[in-house]
Amino acid sequence: MSDPQSRTRAGEPLALSRIAHMVGGTLSGDGDLLVEGVAPLDEAGSQQVGFLALKRYVRFLDGSRAGAFLSSPELEGFLPAGAPRVVVADPYGAVRTLLTHFFPDIPAEAAVHPTAVLGHGVRLGAGVRIGPYAVLEEAVTVGSGTRIGAHAVLGARTSVGERCAFHPHVVTYPDSVVGSDVTVHAGACIGSDGFGYTAVAGRHEKMPQVGRAVIEDEVEIGANTTIDRGSLGDTVVGRGTKIDNLVQVAHNVRIGAGSLLAALVGIAGSTRIGNGVWIGGRASAINHLEIGDGAQVTFGSTVMRDVPPGETVSGSPSRPHREQMRRQAQLGRLDKLIERVRKLETLVS
Amino acid sequence: MSDPQSRTRAGEPLALSRIAHMVGGTLSGDGDLLVEGVAPLDEAGSQQVGFLALKRYVRFLDGSRAGAFLSSPELEGFLPAGAPRVVVADPYGAVRTLLTHFFPDIPAEAAVHPTAVLGHGVRLGAGVRIGPYAVLEEAVTVGSGTRIGAHAVLGARTSVGERCAFHPHVVTYPDSVVGSDVTVHAGACIGSDGFGYTAVAGRHEKMPQVGRAVIEDEVEIGANTTIDRGSLGDTVVGRGTKIDNLVQVAHNVRIGAGSLLAALVGIAGSTRIGNGVWIGGRASAINHLEIGDGAQVTFGSTVMRDVPPGETVSGSPSRPHREQMRRQAQLGRLDKLIERVRKLETLVS
Amino acid sequence: MSDPQSRTRAGEPLALSRIAHMVGGTLSGDGDLLVEGVAPLDEAGSQQVGFLALKRYVRFLDGSRAGAFLSSPELEGFLPAGAPRVVVADPYGAVRTLLTHFFPDIPAEAAVHPTAVLGHGVRLGAGVRIGPYAVLEEAVTVGSGTRIGAHAVLGARTSVGERCAFHPHVVTYPDSVVGSDVTVHAGACIGSDGFGYTAVAGRHEKMPQVGRAVIEDEVEIGANTTIDRGSLGDTVVGRGTKIDNLVQVAHNVRIGAGSLLAALVGIAGSTRIGNGVWIGGRASAINHLEIGDGAQVTFGSTVMRDVPPGETVSGSPSRPHREQMRRQAQLGRLDKLIERVRKLETLVS
Repeated sequence: MSDPQSRTRAGEPLALSRIAHMVGGTLSGDGDLLVEGVAPLDEAGSQQVGFLALKRYVRFLDGSRAGAFLSSPELEGFLPAGAPRVVVADPYGAVRTLLTHFFPDIPAEAAVHPTAVLGHGVRLGAGVRIGPYAVLEEAVTVGSGTRIGAHAVLGARTSVGERCAFHPHVVTYPDSVVGSDVTVHAGACIGSDGFGYTAVAGRHEKMPQVGRAVIEDEVEIGANTTIDRGSLGDTVVGRGTKIDNLVQVAHNVRIGAGSLLAALVGIAGSTRIGNGVWIGGRASAINHLEIGDGAQVTFGSTVMRDVPPGETVSGSPSRPHREQMRRQAQLGRLDKLIERVRKLETLVS
Repeated sequence: MSDPQSRTRAGEPLALSRIAHMVGGTLSGDGDLLVEGVAPLDEAGSQQVGFLALKRYVRFLDGSRAGAFLSSPELEGFLPAGAPRVVVADPYGAVRTLLTHFFPDIPAEAAVHPTAVLGHGVRLGAGVRIGPYAVLEEAVTVGSGTRIGAHAVLGARTSVGERCAFHPHVVTYPDSVVGSDVTVHAGACIGSDGFGYTAVAGRHEKMPQVGRAVIEDEVEIGANTTIDRGSLGDTVVGRGTKIDNLVQVAHNVRIGAGSLLAALVGIAGSTRIGNGVWIGGRASAINHLEIGDGAQVTFGSTVMRDVPPGETVSGSPSRPHREQMRRQAQLGRLDKLIERVRKLETLVS
Repeated sequence: MSDPQSRTRAGEPLALSRIAHMVGGTLSGDGDLLVEGVAPLDEAGSQQVGFLALKRYVRFLDGSRAGAFLSSPELEGFLPAGAPRVVVADPYGAVRTLLTHFFPDIPAEAAVHPTAVLGHGVRLGAGVRIGPYAVLEEAVTVGSGTRIGAHAVLGARTSVGERCAFHPHVVTYPDSVVGSDVTVHAGACIGSDGFGYTAVAGRHEKMPQVGRAVIEDEVEIGANTTIDRGSLGDTVVGRGTKIDNLVQVAHNVRIGAGSLLAALVGIAGSTRIGNGVWIGGRASAINHLEIGDGAQVTFGSTVMRDVPPGETVSGSPSRPHREQMRRQAQLGRLDKLIERVRKLETLVS
């Protein structure tokens, strides 16, 4: 009955020299030191590798009880002299390797819980796990190896691919399409109606929302995030795109492959986001825009115009980041400008 | 067991001349062309009407495989010469008419799922549908024709009117009041406690939240939206008001009739919003404000002061839109102003 | 089967003189008047005390049908001459006292609903209440007096303390730790995966999220709020901190004791928030920041830099509030500055 993605520490301890080898790093100090895990500097114990990848955490070195360290060439100089260490160009990648070793993903037992309600025509692949009280409406299909958490509700004709993990309380509306290797976190909602009305005799008459929400392979969707179905046509989240918690993706939005949307982001209707786009937390974009491939939208920005491919924008309304920085600097000198004008007035009058 | 609002394509194909008649538009070209649906320009096939209502989508005409087009007099000139078309003043309204034909709302079969838990004193009207695992606590009443989705939890003494659609996973807290013809999307929460504390000996002591959440007729509430109960007195969402996904309506907020709140909007405690107000996505308002009838708050704005009836405000902090535009223009010329002051200094010194 | 925190009016009517005594206030007028409750000025009836604590609600006195009034020394002068009243320095505290009397918290009957699914090794304290369809995965522990609402899903090895109230549809991920006297509202998610990826060969490879979410005693968490587990190490919400609806607390955030986070706030990864910090609605902070003890972040602000203890910041990007106010004033006079420069140019040329 365990969660779709339960992780329990299960990997064997590793000698520090073995760690250096696994992550392609350089060992200094006692290579035989046995390491049981990796931890932040201020939480690591003597059997753990303390992790230093950002300069602002150097302050936690003092007092750290870590038995060894994992860091980058730029920060190695801050480590205690002589402390056992592994130094590697990409310490985040190294941590990923270590965590995958120490916390292997143990697949839950394949089984359909007896309380799950399966509608007419539901088809399940091999090795599927369905949690307690999940409801799969008629004609839902679930691919092999997929794990559906407790209380999930998959609307009629929803199609889910292989090896997906749906955490508890996920809801899909009818006709949703989810690819393979997709992770959906608790409370997320896929395929809800878009916000579309037309004025008829002074009332807001609902525009039927008859398109689909289409989630491609290798997408991850955060907790309590909402992705509306298309009104006409589809809402699409492209392959390998990752979406954080509490994000709103409106109807007919199309997001390309390999993009990142951080928490509390809102993308209004019909806006198209390219491949490899990064959108920082709490940023948003109005409707009917184009945000080009490789563009970056910084934290908290409000995008009101198209963003060309590769451009970084910031601010509200957003503009090119460099221009925004210049404007902020000018605003910071407004004091002095006012003083200069006052002085000129004295001289001239 | 289908979803409260399942829509499946079920309407018969229509001749293009019949479509022109239904939407009150002007036909050009082959009126006998049989049409099976309406779609965006870049998705429409030869049996579908491609939809063009915004100039920025003219670029999708090139390459469109639509068999016919639906557009406005302003944009008709962009359509391929000679292509069959219907031209109408309000193309969105026309699409609404067509979608309602092609995707009729097929009511789910009335039934109380055997797994639903009904508390003491629950009363259900005629033709009510209750989905799997729904929980109706004691003394809940549900009006005739209302459909309650799977896993909904209606708190004690909640009253729901007639012909409502509650999607899966909706929660109401005790004593909530919901009118008739109300749609509530998945994961929305009605009547949660407001955020109220008083400082007692350095601790935040909770202010009991004993008012109600009152949702009037014909309201629609988006997925994962939260509407707090009143602290003292009620939180009210007025008749025909539509609220999008992930919106926060705090305790004792009162929203009038026919207003629109787009996604990620936050309205702080006790603020009063009039009738016919439009609040754009991700906008917000602090507490204890008045936003007058017919006011508009643009996307992303932060309202810190009362807004008079009929006024459009924008920005953070928001101000009248015209003033905000002027200020943005001035800021855009700050470069030049600094240059002019520099020149003056040269001349004067 | 009632809700974890059902409140029904149950307290006896009180004489106005008794109310004055209970709240430590000064009585004027008929002390024998029997009062059945407290209400906003425009909703109070003749058996209720109308509540006036803010000057902007003085306008509702005219037409109020309240039988008596509760107000502060500063506002007493606005009350109708001769109307029965209680005047007290802290009227909000007084309302809290009255509401606690009139709406006592009636604990739900202790019971484990027969539909609850309890995994292997689940341990429940005395007097625990588990609602319908709740799922407690293996090795979950729940302290005495705690009430778990319908449809809650507690992930494997989650530990919950005593006297907590979990409203319906709460989800905890495996290994979450919740203290005592904690309230969690409907749809909130504790312990979801943080948003962490590393680039490997052009793809976003997920960083395993193996830390915990730790919620200390006396915390309150709002509806549909999400609190991620730590990536390495823990995400911590400190004792007595209160969090509103639709808030995002990212991985490895640490929040001290007695802080307040209003609705739609977003705190990005690894940011540390001190004790007694106030963060207004829809405000946010980027990752890896320090916000010191007693700091205040005003409504809608975007924090991009560390905030020293005790400082109030506002705006986007946020800066010290006083500085922000000065800048806003300068911007408001930009019109005039441009005019002054124009005049100078006329004089000098």
